[in-house]
Amino acid sequence: MSDLKVHEFKVAMTCEGCSGAVERVLGKMKGKGVEDFNINLEAQKVEVKSSLPANEILEVIKKTGKETQLISSA
Amino acid sequence: MSDLKVHEFKVAMTCEGCSGAVERVLGKMKGKGVEDFNINLEAQKVEVKSSLPANEILEVIKKTGKETQLISSA
Repeated sequence: MSDLKVHEFKVAMTCEGCSGAVERVLGKMKGKGVEDFNINLEAQKVEVKSSLPANEILEVIKKTGKETQLISSA
Repeated sequence: MSDLKVHEFKVAMTCEGCSGAVERVLGKMKGKGVEDFNINLEAQKVEVKSSLPANEILEVIKKTGKETQLISSA
């Protein structure tokens, strides 16, 4: 079993269409390395609990076309 | 040289963050099979002039997490 970490990302989201898009993309990764996630539209932050390296999750979020960056992993 | 076609897609976009995300993703494909594209946020339509099959472009747009479907190819 891999260790689970919580990775926090800043993601540019301006409406519920934006956050919904991120939700769908991360939702597809549930059971594929992503254990759980939480999207905060107002704070423009996304927390992902995962066994995957932060970089790999960052690439998936980038595929949405949203500007994003890793804030922290713990 | 492959033939260029114009593929029209319906893409669920509700703000400029949404259309900007689609723009960034398609922009990365310029010179990689995508010749040009036009995004109409209000009409929720995206036209892509490309030598790629419509399916391939549809998959790229889907990666944004937006709900999308092909309307026509001509």
